Amino acid sequence: MTGTSDAEAPAPSRTSPPIIAVDAMGGDNAPSEIVKGAVMAVRELGLRVLLVGRRTEIASLLAEEGALRDIPVVHAEDNLAMHEGALASWRRPRSSAAVSCRLIRRGDADALVSAGSTGGIVATSTVRLRTQPGVLRPALAVTLPTGETPTIMVDAGANADAKPEMLVQFAHLGCAYAQTAFGVRRPRVGLLTIGSEPGKGNKLVRRATELLSATAEGSPSMDFRGNIEGHDLLARKVDVVVTDGHTGNVALKSVEGTAAFAMDLVRDALTSTAAAKAGALLQRKALRRLRERLDSETYGGAALLGLNGTVVIAHGDSRAKGVARACQLAHDLAGGRIGEQIRRRVHHRSSNWLHRLAQSEAPPPSPPGALPPAPEGR
Amino acid sequence: MTGTSDAEAPAPSRTSPPIIAVDAMGGDNAPSEIVKGAVMAVRELGLRVLLVGRRTEIASLLAEEGALRDIPVVHAEDNLAMHEGALASWRRPRSSAAVSCRLIRRGDADALVSAGSTGGIVATSTVRLRTQPGVLRPALAVTLPTGETPTIMVDAGANADAKPEMLVQFAHLGCAYAQTAFGVRRPRVGLLTIGSEPGKGNKLVRRATELLSATAEGSPSMDFRGNIEGHDLLARKVDVVVTDGHTGNVALKSVEGTAAFAMDLVRDALTSTAAAKAGALLQRKALRRLRERLDSETYGGAALLGLNGTVVIAHGDSRAKGVARACQLAHDLAGGRIGEQIRRRVHHRSSNWLHRLAQSEAPPPSPPGALPPAPEGR
Repeated sequence: MTGTSDAEAPAPSRTSPPIIAVDAMGGDNAPSEIVKGAVMAVRELGLRVLLVGRRTEIASLLAEEGALRDIPVVHAEDNLAMHEGALASWRRPRSSAAVSCRLIRRGDADALVSAGSTGGIVATSTVRLRTQPGVLRPALAVTLPTGETPTIMVDAGANADAKPEMLVQFAHLGCAYAQTAFGVRRPRVGLLTIGSEPGKGNKLVRRATELLSATAEGSPSMDFRGNIEGHDLLARKVDVVVTDGHTGNVALKSVEGTAAFAMDLVRDALTSTAAAKAGALLQRKALRRLRERLDSETYGGAALLGLNGTVVIAHGDSRAKGVARACQLAHDLAGGRIGEQIRRRVHHRSSNWLHRLAQSEAPPPSPPGALPPAPEGR
Repeated sequence: MTGTSDAEAPAPSRTSPPIIAVDAMGGDNAPSEIVKGAVMAVRELGLRVLLVGRRTEIASLLAEEGALRDIPVVHAEDNLAMHEGALASWRRPRSSAAVSCRLIRRGDADALVSAGSTGGIVATSTVRLRTQPGVLRPALAVTLPTGETPTIMVDAGANADAKPEMLVQFAHLGCAYAQTAFGVRRPRVGLLTIGSEPGKGNKLVRRATELLSATAEGSPSMDFRGNIEGHDLLARKVDVVVTDGHTGNVALKSVEGTAAFAMDLVRDALTSTAAAKAGALLQRKALRRLRERLDSETYGGAALLGLNGTVVIAHGDSRAKGVARACQLAHDLAGGRIGEQIRRRVHHRSSNWLHRLAQSEAPPPSPPGALPPAPEGR
């Protein structure tokens, strides 16, 4: 198969289910839990998966699971360490993440799933997959554990310093996600800020409010609801929460940290006295369901939106179940053609100033050193 | 008693306990719960309190409590509505909050406690009490429910757009708080951002990291620990969390919202089946303690630091207990002379550039319209 030489060429149309390249070497529990997760994705969820990483290591793990014939392995001799940030990742063209991106560009895969370091995966996939036409910056979208139809937050950390025009696009990216993964036709969008009244917030939010109000007015595909606050994140007030990567990342981790803290308190409270312990025995099932509800593993991973290919980043400490869930999310997004959704929304909705800005903006951030232009061969 | 004509004049030295002016008209449950809270502060906590607001209304509520002789009332004919923001409050020189500030400037009170709208109280007290010499901006400090010695977060929402130099001062304000209210001599300070490695975060945080590292190096009164993340907020990693008002407010409300959400889930889980219900009966005491731990009313209020006078803003929906706790916090801060602590830290620690900046900065934000220079009489 020949590689496509233009990163912006549309992905080949497929009617068959999407193929998910799983980065076997990324994550605290790689490769063993990652391989188990891939096997789970194939056997229990019926997905099409291939594993990318050191062939012999992966093969022996697959053999243990009796899955050597079920999942193809693509060799990659290098991998990104968990502590490695954006810069290092640019210098590793043979990492499992980089090789996975190459598979996507060639049309041999549709999506990448990795539990590697977020910074490294964002940098690697941004530079190797490139942003879709008109998209200023890719953004991380996460789902908050609000129930049946989760609330999506964009950006959860890819862009620490954002501009108002980027927040407008994050809204479109989030809406495309809500429509593709959860079938929400006209997602409700809220801007995360410090007060519910219009005009509250920092300069970035105030300007983004004006732009979003103008963009969304009368739109059949976005219902802009104005400001929302931190305590609304889990209250199902909106389908898409828009924020910059700094605020979004802090908010997400505050939610996760508080949920973990509350669960610890519950456990302590319920085992503090003999009577309470007896009570806890009676509640085992109820508490297990509660734990699952607050457990981040049940919510797939973060999706990096706006690139020429679907990228899902699972929690660094993911175990097999988390990896399988991330594969399911990648399958849903790639299978639902989220790329086309985004293209339509960004092209259709963007007014002229956004296009001009996109044109004048430099292409996706390049490394300070020289990177050979998107290596194709091994 | 004559009013001091200079807002920056040092507060008169007192050896007697501080007097707390309680804004009887501010808050969702004003004035009845506020008056009850003031009575509780006097009777149960032994504090010195006076009530400010509409005299006849307050007097009749005090009479109901049989406390007419215990608490002096200072009349104020006007009050800030809960929905009123910064601008409106500037235009109300006879509001209960404004009159309370006048009492502080005259030396008739040492602290203001209000459950009124945060924006309104911040604006009123900033313009009427003025910032302490050298302080760039007042900042809201809140305590996070981490246990015996709470973690303090500064700024929780007073400055949506902050500069790196302000974050350095917020660290000093927070340290003064930790020392005064909790006796922490060398508070550990962390900057809230999106990764634990140095250099992670937005431009504001990266520059503030450099400045704080330089300021705190070898300091006997501050132990700068670098970056912390959202999930560290409740983990007691530091004593003072430094952040801008936008991020801080979102983080605080995310923590509060998630704690409330988790408690709802626990309640649902524990009453979902007959067996679970029976279990819950056995755990009533343990669960009550848990609820108290996560209940924001047990944690006083937000302190507005850096002004010539102590200001504590209680939750808008505070009931009597919350108001009494806010009075206790105001008593501890004013009695511990937090103003002098801050003066010493800001004067002593600030390097030259900070002073130059403070001099070149305009005095505390003035209203767009004209405000009569700090009215003294009624």
